Amino acid sequence: MWSLWPGRVINAGKSRHNEDQACCEVVYVEGRRSVSGVPREPSQGQGLCFYYWGLFDGHAGGGAAEMASRLLHRHIREQLKDLVEILQDPSPPPLCLPSTPGAPGSSDSSHLVGPQSCWSSQKEVTHESLVVGAIENAFQFMDEQMARERRGHQVEGGCCALVVVYLLGKVYVANAGDSRAIIVRNGEIIPMSREFTPETERRRLQLLGFLKPELLGGEFTHLEFPRRIQPKELGQRTLYRDQNMTGWAYKKIELEDLRFPLVCGEGKKARVMATIGVTRGLGDHNLKVCSSTLPIKPFLSCFPEVRVYDLTQYEHCPDDVLVLGTDGLWDVTSDCEVAATVDRVLSAYEPNDPSRYTALAQALVLGARGTPRDRGWRLPNNKLGSGDDISVFVIPLGGPGSYS
Amino acid sequence: MWSLWPGRVINAGKSRHNEDQACCEVVYVEGRRSVSGVPREPSQGQGLCFYYWGLFDGHAGGGAAEMASRLLHRHIREQLKDLVEILQDPSPPPLCLPSTPGAPGSSDSSHLVGPQSCWSSQKEVTHESLVVGAIENAFQFMDEQMARERRGHQVEGGCCALVVVYLLGKVYVANAGDSRAIIVRNGEIIPMSREFTPETERRRLQLLGFLKPELLGGEFTHLEFPRRIQPKELGQRTLYRDQNMTGWAYKKIELEDLRFPLVCGEGKKARVMATIGVTRGLGDHNLKVCSSTLPIKPFLSCFPEVRVYDLTQYEHCPDDVLVLGTDGLWDVTSDCEVAATVDRVLSAYEPNDPSRYTALAQALVLGARGTPRDRGWRLPNNKLGSGDDISVFVIPLGGPGSYS
Repeated sequence: MWSLWPGRVINAGKSRHNEDQACCEVVYVEGRRSVSGVPREPSQGQGLCFYYWGLFDGHAGGGAAEMASRLLHRHIREQLKDLVEILQDPSPPPLCLPSTPGAPGSSDSSHLVGPQSCWSSQKEVTHESLVVGAIENAFQFMDEQMARERRGHQVEGGCCALVVVYLLGKVYVANAGDSRAIIVRNGEIIPMSREFTPETERRRLQLLGFLKPELLGGEFTHLEFPRRIQPKELGQRTLYRDQNMTGWAYKKIELEDLRFPLVCGEGKKARVMATIGVTRGLGDHNLKVCSSTLPIKPFLSCFPEVRVYDLTQYEHCPDDVLVLGTDGLWDVTSDCEVAATVDRVLSAYEPNDPSRYTALAQALVLGARGTPRDRGWRLPNNKLGSGDDISVFVIPLGGPGSYS
Repeated sequence: MWSLWPGRVINAGKSRHNEDQACCEVVYVEGRRSVSGVPREPSQGQGLCFYYWGLFDGHAGGGAAEMASRLLHRHIREQLKDLVEILQDPSPPPLCLPSTPGAPGSSDSSHLVGPQSCWSSQKEVTHESLVVGAIENAFQFMDEQMARERRGHQVEGGCCALVVVYLLGKVYVANAGDSRAIIVRNGEIIPMSREFTPETERRRLQLLGFLKPELLGGEFTHLEFPRRIQPKELGQRTLYRDQNMTGWAYKKIELEDLRFPLVCGEGKKARVMATIGVTRGLGDHNLKVCSSTLPIKPFLSCFPEVRVYDLTQYEHCPDDVLVLGTDGLWDVTSDCEVAATVDRVLSAYEPNDPSRYTALAQALVLGARGTPRDRGWRLPNNKLGSGDDISVFVIPLGGPGSYS
């Protein structure tokens, strides 16, 4: 069995205000009545269990993060219900299912259109890709629920979501936002996510602005410039790039180029529509451009990127861990520094002491927070500590308190 | 100096018909009159030279490949003209240039708006990214020229384009299509391109079909299914994925799902709109869906991905080469097999024998073609040889006949 709270520290103690939320659950998925139409006895106990960890970094209010921490795993469970039998059956997933799963008399197993009845070329779909699809759609359903309930239930703001699902021997890491997950295995770093920001998603955003210019409301241009163009520069030529380019070129400055660029700024200061610095996540249905009624949500994606790690392909030792952190950790701590802290803290404890992972999570948070001196919270290198909320999960991959 | 024809073999001799074209040039770029507005003496000789290799794999006629092989490097030269002074000046590129470069009296150097006069945060633009932008735009201008001249000059068909530009110590590899470039350096393989196919570009294609459904003409659906849905399956649930998903999920089959999928098939048989198996390249302005008037061009991109390799960062030996090949080579030859052939052939020649690179290119083509036996052209492993055109360039990175 996984120990369910292997190590998590929220809010580094700099303020009482915290928009980070976290969740950690064992979730049991009971199948719908047999997808093949044959009613199944409840006593057969063919449900599935998954282990779940979620970090939710809220912005512009804590409502979305709070709601996601309560409900996202239930959406994942809901999406997995249809798959309970399929995932436990080693044969390839059926291409078609009857319309109403398990509705009495609606169908029988002959309605299952398997590969045998298919045309010549049928694409192979793996069990793994069904779980990925279930997680992807769960994010979308969560986001849609926030849209529906935003008025009645005060779902303010939005949140990044970084979620881990452990199911049938595989670890699924789903990330929508700028949190990050890495595996530290035998000292080696294996990235398990990437960040979605105005810089990393520039071309997707620009393409959308180009194809749907009405979303720019006449206030923004889909072109990127190294800085904002000034009216007196009209008629000169300036550096620019569009949705097709990674390089830069010169173009003559026209009136439209004086609009604010859809994507501007660099690093942590990069923004979409001069407003938001993260381009994927849940919520933000009410987010508008500052002093305008232009909605930003069309440019944000609620879909995560899901990476899969097969836990059975490698014999893990007690020092192998999966580390999840919000940007409060990663803004001031590199992957290598995290790996060094993993090594330093875990080696100070007995391998079978479960508290070593909690200690590690605390060390990571405190290391990113710094200590108060010189008019600020400082890191050992005297740089400023993270001023953001800092949340960390440490999930052991092979130690005590890991999977059974 | 590079030897200009270090090794190239076109058409493996199976037929007289060949849609591949190639080009290899030293191109001199004379600057426009000084971008700063001060006329420059022609005798100053401040032009730039670049070395150029291009492989063009035509389809549906040889017109586009032939035209690209004649003209693409001229478009690159044209795009570089504005940059001749800038690229030779170690200071950062100016953000703005006067409107009409070098037009007498149009401006003076005070019109150059350098970083010093900029707002607080100006993005840094490198010389390298200007060359990348110039190559990207040259592909677009080439494609636009084909669109303009397709009637008058019989530009039939389209072509993949794989182009190498060596300029000021750096190698720029630009790829639009399914050709491939790799560097073999000290036996190690460094990929210098990736292929653009209905599979690798699925989500871009689906997103376009979703945002602009009129481009699907009521004949196609932007959703992907493992195989085409049959009318009798209406109302059942089928596996699908959309532009946001990498995984698969089940959805109820509706009438629209009976349309043909925008993207279908796998591997070499993957197709956009059941027609074309490559999603980037030049030309194809007249390409229509089979037995329909629906144009396919809106789904094809003429923009290359450009990768940069800094030749000065590593001391190259005579066995280090850049290998370019059309898909006729790579369909039957892996990167590792190419690296093994590089090793085998080059070690059979003296390091200073320039003919070793030609011999290597010939060996690669003949190896992919196979030899006639058992009712077909067979490879040593008895698999069928490539039935496609096979074109290969071998460019030495550190041997005799490489750069001065």
